[in-house]
Amino acid sequence: MIAFQRSEYSKRIAAAKTRMAERGLDLLFITVPENINYLCGYAGWSFYTHQALLLTAQGPEPLLVIRDMDVPCAHFTAFLAHENVIGYPEEYIGGDKHPMSFIAQVIRERCGSPARIGIEAEASFFTVRAHGVLTAALPGAQFIDSGALVNWLRTVKSPAEIAYLREAAQLADAAIATADEHIAVGVRESAVCAELKRTLIKGAGSFGGSVPDNPLLASGNRTSCPHIPWTDEPIAANAAVTLELGGSRFQYHAGLSRTWWMGTPKAALLRLAETTIEGLNTAIDAVKPGIHCEDVEAAWRRVLTRAGYEKKSRIGYSIGLGFQPNWADGTASLQPGDRTVLEPGMVFHMICGMWKGDDNFVLSETFAVTPSGHEVLTNAPRKLYVKG
Amino acid sequence: MIAFQRSEYSKRIAAAKTRMAERGLDLLFITVPENINYLCGYAGWSFYTHQALLLTAQGPEPLLVIRDMDVPCAHFTAFLAHENVIGYPEEYIGGDKHPMSFIAQVIRERCGSPARIGIEAEASFFTVRAHGVLTAALPGAQFIDSGALVNWLRTVKSPAEIAYLREAAQLADAAIATADEHIAVGVRESAVCAELKRTLIKGAGSFGGSVPDNPLLASGNRTSCPHIPWTDEPIAANAAVTLELGGSRFQYHAGLSRTWWMGTPKAALLRLAETTIEGLNTAIDAVKPGIHCEDVEAAWRRVLTRAGYEKKSRIGYSIGLGFQPNWADGTASLQPGDRTVLEPGMVFHMICGMWKGDDNFVLSETFAVTPSGHEVLTNAPRKLYVKG
Repeated sequence: MIAFQRSEYSKRIAAAKTRMAERGLDLLFITVPENINYLCGYAGWSFYTHQALLLTAQGPEPLLVIRDMDVPCAHFTAFLAHENVIGYPEEYIGGDKHPMSFIAQVIRERCGSPARIGIEAEASFFTVRAHGVLTAALPGAQFIDSGALVNWLRTVKSPAEIAYLREAAQLADAAIATADEHIAVGVRESAVCAELKRTLIKGAGSFGGSVPDNPLLASGNRTSCPHIPWTDEPIAANAAVTLELGGSRFQYHAGLSRTWWMGTPKAALLRLAETTIEGLNTAIDAVKPGIHCEDVEAAWRRVLTRAGYEKKSRIGYSIGLGFQPNWADGTASLQPGDRTVLEPGMVFHMICGMWKGDDNFVLSETFAVTPSGHEVLTNAPRKLYVKG
Repeated sequence: MIAFQRSEYSKRIAAAKTRMAERGLDLLFITVPENINYLCGYAGWSFYTHQALLLTAQGPEPLLVIRDMDVPCAHFTAFLAHENVIGYPEEYIGGDKHPMSFIAQVIRERCGSPARIGIEAEASFFTVRAHGVLTAALPGAQFIDSGALVNWLRTVKSPAEIAYLREAAQLADAAIATADEHIAVGVRESAVCAELKRTLIKGAGSFGGSVPDNPLLASGNRTSCPHIPWTDEPIAANAAVTLELGGSRFQYHAGLSRTWWMGTPKAALLRLAETTIEGLNTAIDAVKPGIHCEDVEAAWRRVLTRAGYEKKSRIGYSIGLGFQPNWADGTASLQPGDRTVLEPGMVFHMICGMWKGDDNFVLSETFAVTPSGHEVLTNAPRKLYVKG
């Protein structure tokens, strides 16, 4: 059940080592779950405990240090030789002994004496205390914030990764069809979400889904909230329903959002929907290699400004590998000031969320940059869905 | 859609302030999503961005600082007065400006000049960089690791919290019945998980579920892995299926695990199952107020030792509020050396996971400590489920 061929991991590791050499790093200390998965395949749902992947400038393959009970999972999901997966004992769980003291010991014993260690200072799950224990245990080393080094490698996808994203997008499309089937006046928000999760995981054809991120469904006046959880409230007549969801294959996510109206939509909402759709269409049409992220946003903004609307937040971000609660790569954003140059293989979730208060309309697509332009991976009608 | 009455939040805040006074803290800087939710109700799915709840020793209610687009969600889910929910602008997302510099500014302007600030140094989403920015921006303050101060408050549940946990347990029970219905030779692991998620969210009676943590289902030789994700592989004949799942109401989780065998079980597995069931029964029977966590584990261990088995890992932990990927309170564990005294209102997920390699058997229950002993919240037959 290893997601990619060994040659793909080898390329990724070689690219990481090139970046390490540029920064003079002897060791890259990796704790972001997606980055660990990217470089070795490890897919255990264990990142709520401390763990790390240790990539040295010299060693042939990285070392993975995880909780002892999760070592068998690494043997199933990672390409690593068994001697390169090291489990820390249970005495490091639920007590005073910190797993980072064990991991520091592994560094001393198996990684030479790294003088310059790169850490991911913006990593969720690499806690302040973990950092304190690690640095205190390795007093001879210099710790450097290596930032989003691996995240940036992940930002340009390989053909094999794009293939998973196409499948993830198929699952997302199927879930929008499921939503359209189940959204009705009087139906609980939770009941719709139950069917969405079923479709996202069961799949429709020759494959099922991996763990999808939490769908965000809201109705009525809660549609002004981009990240509110669903409730048991029934969907009301003459009210909107907004939905953002993601299909997932081997944790590669394609995001997709649509909006419903229960009844006859008011002119103001129709106009907002029309402008948002035109804005998204125009922005996607602009996508091609060589332009900057901010140029895509500018294309959107021109449509909005002409119609008298404004959106303060970014209209998209690099998307791909994600373990809950995350699916963004944490690198490029489609927003003013982002001068990232688009390259073939980059994938974005373009989310045109117009959370205006009274009228709310959300529309998104996931697209890949291709050598000749772009490929929209998701494929659901771009419209305001009207029911009842 | 606020989960509890105002009086309940007031009690929690008063208890937190008592602990703050004991440690001489002027400000408690809270970033653990469950702790934010516990003290004010905020339930936005926004914790992948930086946010904090600021509880001062003197102020009447805490301040919540979150991303600007999530402020409406706080108005729906938290009891806070509108002026106590502060949004940081979008320029702090996806660029060089760190949200913690904004949050530090809020502290300077609205929290007096706190001399001693308690931080949660083991919080998953409070990054090393965030800590660095915060401490640099408040050079006059002393930062103290307040540890699991709020987590310990959460460890003893109120009657209203127990009521949600009973409902969560009903959802978990229903999902085990769903699993038993769908687990069959030739069915994909992912297809079973799709049905589980549907049951957990849709519910069976008068309520649905909130966002449940990811079910862990494995079959065949992958049952040796406690935290491996499901696959598209079909369930094979003469193989085991292990399942750990949780029902969730307002993010209060009840955990529940069971094991299946497809065919006629071997004697070794039957004996392992029988011993594990007896061990769990014996350990639960021992639960009453006044004994220590380690005493519960000792009751289990005696049964195992007599039968010639060993389990290295803890057999349970305090459970309750959880946002993915977490549902443990991060406080008491049922393991040797844990001298936490059991009190009425404590709730544990007792998980007797026997991951032995060739034979694997997992059995768990969620129970509450009551004034007279205990109440097992989950309610599915304790057996090895045998099919076809």
